[in-house]
Amino acid sequence: MSKKISESTVRRLSLYLRSLREAVEGSAETISSEELADRGGTTAAQVRKDLSMFGSFGKRGMGYPTAELTRAIEEILGLHRRWRVAVIGAGKIGSALVAYRNFHSRGFEIVAVFDTDPAKVGAVWGGQRIQPDEALERVVSEREIDIAIIAVPGTAAQSVADRVVASGVRALLNFAPVRLRVPEDVALRNVDMVLELEQLTYALNSAEF
Amino acid sequence: MSKKISESTVRRLSLYLRSLREAVEGSAETISSEELADRGGTTAAQVRKDLSMFGSFGKRGMGYPTAELTRAIEEILGLHRRWRVAVIGAGKIGSALVAYRNFHSRGFEIVAVFDTDPAKVGAVWGGQRIQPDEALERVVSEREIDIAIIAVPGTAAQSVADRVVASGVRALLNFAPVRLRVPEDVALRNVDMVLELEQLTYALNSAEF
Repeated sequence: MSKKISESTVRRLSLYLRSLREAVEGSAETISSEELADRGGTTAAQVRKDLSMFGSFGKRGMGYPTAELTRAIEEILGLHRRWRVAVIGAGKIGSALVAYRNFHSRGFEIVAVFDTDPAKVGAVWGGQRIQPDEALERVVSEREIDIAIIAVPGTAAQSVADRVVASGVRALLNFAPVRLRVPEDVALRNVDMVLELEQLTYALNSAEF
Repeated sequence: MSKKISESTVRRLSLYLRSLREAVEGSAETISSEELADRGGTTAAQVRKDLSMFGSFGKRGMGYPTAELTRAIEEILGLHRRWRVAVIGAGKIGSALVAYRNFHSRGFEIVAVFDTDPAKVGAVWGGQRIQPDEALERVVSEREIDIAIIAVPGTAAQSVADRVVASGVRALLNFAPVRLRVPEDVALRNVDMVLELEQLTYALNSAEF
């Protein structure tokens, strides 16, 4: 699967996958493009277009076979394997992430947590002993971390990003409110609550005029 | 400002605004489209196109006047006023949100926090006493909440959304891993960590082929 697909398509595939998993759990053997569209916040035509990119599933008018399509989307998204995640920063966001049960069931294994605060180092969170910042490079490399979640203050985020990238990590999820610079072959996503709130205030503000 | 602009444009305006605020703090009177492009993860041509939608700023070759452009974008995004926010759910995510200092400096005032757990109700977080779930409708209406942040478990999220919408809230930021249904005139944004991680695994997976 070397064909590059857009971010918004990847996002819709994730949403289709949720409907599919619910359908599989509910023992439904097929699912319609309308049902997938509803969950994905899109149209049935868009669903058919998205899924046609990855081959031919099901028969016209019969719906998509849930088990087969689930496996296919999982493979496209790289979810047929488990991923090893490090959480860097054991503050409130780090704590919420470690406690987040959905990660495990979706194939994400938090295998290391780091902090600079000696008062936190050594505590056990979700089965993980919090490790000192100095151990970052060694542990990230030894434990073959796939994805680093950066949950440190903005002032420390670029330095942490540089260090994990130098230790071999190729994917970062950044919660710090700064724009990180990473090499081109490193995937970066940002979770930024203020940006989300500003989308809402734009909507509220433009509705008032 | 009744002209509807796209989500991705709104997002870029938020990013430009960050550069502008830094520039204003650093006493820079002008900023180039290249500098704005760098922060917004886009091109100088896109910056000029985005900003031209809102009128004419600055002179060709002179850069944009930082103070004037800051005010203009703040007005477009609705940030020339303060917004009253309620956090519903005093779990780990709620706790991280209440502690998040950037909200206040960006014009978002958390004025109410709610939880169903009697052991949490009455505790004071960030100056806010946690209120019982039963008070939700009354407090949301009395305190004129603009934005509700939903940080409850997935099973409770739709019911909470329905109740705040019925109490007059027109903007929701949802952290629960479910798709909420809201009336058309209600703005909804979702923060979904698993979706972000799946964007990363797609990138890692497609790089490996």
